[in-house]
Amino acid sequence: MAERIQPADPVTLTAREAARRIGSGALSSRALVEACLERIAREDESLRAWKFVDPEKALAEADERDQRRKRGLPLGSLHGVPVGIKDIIDVQGMPTTNGTAVDEGRRPEADATLVRRLRQAGAVILGKTVTTELAYYQPADTRNPHDPERTPGGSSSGSAAAVAAHMVPLAVGTQTHGSVIRPAAFCGVVGFKPTYGAIPRTGVLRLAPTLDQVGVFARSIEDAALAEVVMGADGSDTDVREYPGPLTGTTLSEPPVAPDLAFTGSPAWDRAEEGTEAAFDELREALGDRIEAMEMPEVFARARGWLDAVMRAEMARNVGHYVDRYPDQMSDKLRELVEEGRGIRAPDYLAARDMSTVLHEGLRPIFHRFDAIVTPAVPGEAPVGLDTTGDPAFCSLWTFCGLPCLSLPLLTGPNGLPLGVQLVGQRGQDARLLRTARWLVRQLTEGEAT
Amino acid sequence: MAERIQPADPVTLTAREAARRIGSGALSSRALVEACLERIAREDESLRAWKFVDPEKALAEADERDQRRKRGLPLGSLHGVPVGIKDIIDVQGMPTTNGTAVDEGRRPEADATLVRRLRQAGAVILGKTVTTELAYYQPADTRNPHDPERTPGGSSSGSAAAVAAHMVPLAVGTQTHGSVIRPAAFCGVVGFKPTYGAIPRTGVLRLAPTLDQVGVFARSIEDAALAEVVMGADGSDTDVREYPGPLTGTTLSEPPVAPDLAFTGSPAWDRAEEGTEAAFDELREALGDRIEAMEMPEVFARARGWLDAVMRAEMARNVGHYVDRYPDQMSDKLRELVEEGRGIRAPDYLAARDMSTVLHEGLRPIFHRFDAIVTPAVPGEAPVGLDTTGDPAFCSLWTFCGLPCLSLPLLTGPNGLPLGVQLVGQRGQDARLLRTARWLVRQLTEGEAT
Repeated sequence: MAERIQPADPVTLTAREAARRIGSGALSSRALVEACLERIAREDESLRAWKFVDPEKALAEADERDQRRKRGLPLGSLHGVPVGIKDIIDVQGMPTTNGTAVDEGRRPEADATLVRRLRQAGAVILGKTVTTELAYYQPADTRNPHDPERTPGGSSSGSAAAVAAHMVPLAVGTQTHGSVIRPAAFCGVVGFKPTYGAIPRTGVLRLAPTLDQVGVFARSIEDAALAEVVMGADGSDTDVREYPGPLTGTTLSEPPVAPDLAFTGSPAWDRAEEGTEAAFDELREALGDRIEAMEMPEVFARARGWLDAVMRAEMARNVGHYVDRYPDQMSDKLRELVEEGRGIRAPDYLAARDMSTVLHEGLRPIFHRFDAIVTPAVPGEAPVGLDTTGDPAFCSLWTFCGLPCLSLPLLTGPNGLPLGVQLVGQRGQDARLLRTARWLVRQLTEGEAT
Repeated sequence: MAERIQPADPVTLTAREAARRIGSGALSSRALVEACLERIAREDESLRAWKFVDPEKALAEADERDQRRKRGLPLGSLHGVPVGIKDIIDVQGMPTTNGTAVDEGRRPEADATLVRRLRQAGAVILGKTVTTELAYYQPADTRNPHDPERTPGGSSSGSAAAVAAHMVPLAVGTQTHGSVIRPAAFCGVVGFKPTYGAIPRTGVLRLAPTLDQVGVFARSIEDAALAEVVMGADGSDTDVREYPGPLTGTTLSEPPVAPDLAFTGSPAWDRAEEGTEAAFDELREALGDRIEAMEMPEVFARARGWLDAVMRAEMARNVGHYVDRYPDQMSDKLRELVEEGRGIRAPDYLAARDMSTVLHEGLRPIFHRFDAIVTPAVPGEAPVGLDTTGDPAFCSLWTFCGLPCLSLPLLTGPNGLPLGVQLVGQRGQDARLLRTARWLVRQLTEGEAT
């Protein structure tokens, strides 16, 4: 679908490399932003990853960044780098439509905390990326950059597609069930959902606060570590208790000893496609005795049901008013969600929510023995059709327990499309997870896995 | 009801004074514990404040404390001081029956975090104080020390009565609605419920975790400040985020300027008895222009309904199994609670819970202008009869918002019984609240109120 990119085109740069070159003067922020805007102008009519882009504003911000460098002022780790923001996250002066026509006129007066922090780190907010309706399951019209007939995944569809299509080196998304890991896997980019409570959600559409987690899309693990700039308490989101950063130093370091990995098909293994099983067999073979198969007790398979109960109940509370006010403008999927959520009894909701702690306790011993869990990110390649965003089943347990997760584009499916490998770490050990991921990639590319 | 106590009897000492004397060798922990045990032996058959006392164990602990002093080891701020523990809080080696016959055989294997911390501060755990059934509204048979025909309040009935009757200088209770402030007011002692999330509830019966708060009963404000020894995160109770301590230094200090107080009848003013209104009129007169009447918008009166919804839903989740397993051994009050809680829909529960933040935001401006809110603790004197624990209406708003509250035995009702004055502070400003309370007491006793 996409035009071939010249290797020298700055849109091929990772965020870190772009920031480095802008910092040294080898590249201007304007040149990078112009290149991204050109690519969007050329490709996005068919890809539809962007909901809103303001080229003039972005270029003005880029010029400001270039001026700042020329004046010799201190520069942040994203200085001059354009970033895409999922359209359920408030950006001052840009429309934030939450993926629904009824919010079309909405223009937030303030940046979300994470957007403010991105700006403080020097980023240029390039625009808003397409999301599904209220970040739930009703797809928007974004396509998969690898095959326009296939879904990019959801709900952070535009953020994943835009990074995969080299329209922007870094984009922000959110995950309430599988909305960072799944689209990253389908689009073949790195998706990183940090530990629950690491990134404040102030200024982000509230769906199911017990589950809502912010994440990033990037084209390298090192870039995913830049999520550190948005982490930490902001005094408003009271669920932010962890600060698993800083990440970059550890991510770039060598593991003190070779990591031990646990392989699990995850409680959703019966949903894995044939090609996925085969690809993971090869991966495990390549890793030899550094990876060990792990049986997961039956109870972990129930995470999906508990997560669904919590999500439905909380979303009925938080977005039910959309259905009440605009019944005809909401999808059947959303109306059903709200109806189901309203049928859940409070003690049952509380019982489901409490199981998150129980399951997390059950997972704890794994992380005493292993550095990370290796498991599929998705059942297989991105499914054909734009009427679904695919199955989040491989994310349920980890999201429910708030563990840091990473999707890596390491495998290829039977149709030559990307197949995500998911790495899962212990709560708060995001940096170690990223370091392990870099080690894993090196093992597989350098073939030194024993 | 109670025998007259000689002024020289160590049971008259405050906890601070007792610890000071024990530390200096002027008093032994054994002598104090013996005096308390004697008083319990003489009076508790009629008062019924204690569920369990182990004299031998308490005396052995006291001897250990006395030995420690003689060896010149460092002593905690409660060194050698006996403390009573509400019978929903686990004490290793003592039965914890949660106020219900079905838990009669329960003997916890570990101390609750707060009990462990009390021991670390040198306290002697004297025994378990009587609570209502599962700390809800079905009374036990504890009597009010000022009048055996009246309720001591609940659910921390025994803790309040034991401190009032000079059986122990300090006792721990809990408050989910009004269970520290109400019994303190009815029994004429100081009750202090710190900011929500200040004291870990690990090892405390889980009722409604959004509301459950630990508090203390004492015979002086300075003793209430000793709650500082049990504050702060323990790594288990994830709702502990505040550490409003240390308290004692600030409590004992002079306010930098004379405090400004706001008087409100509270949203429950229409429940106040005639004698209460009259007593508060006098109090306000005595304080002159240091206290200002404040109108509270209508919405705050809805706190009680929202608190009730949250409490019912969460208690149905957490103690519903008692009703399922032992339907005949539970009170009608508890069965109704669980039934009502099970009828609440999850989104309605979540909506009610969210109102706590909204109301707290609404109260914030008050604390910009005033050091504390002055309001009744209870509608009036302890009601006659042991079939009720009285009305918690004057606690609903403050408990729901998690504010620190203090009940001070400053007023007397028409029958000569204590009438509690409640002071409420801003979240996290527990020390300032205690300092303001000491100032208030001095104003009233020294008549310097302008």
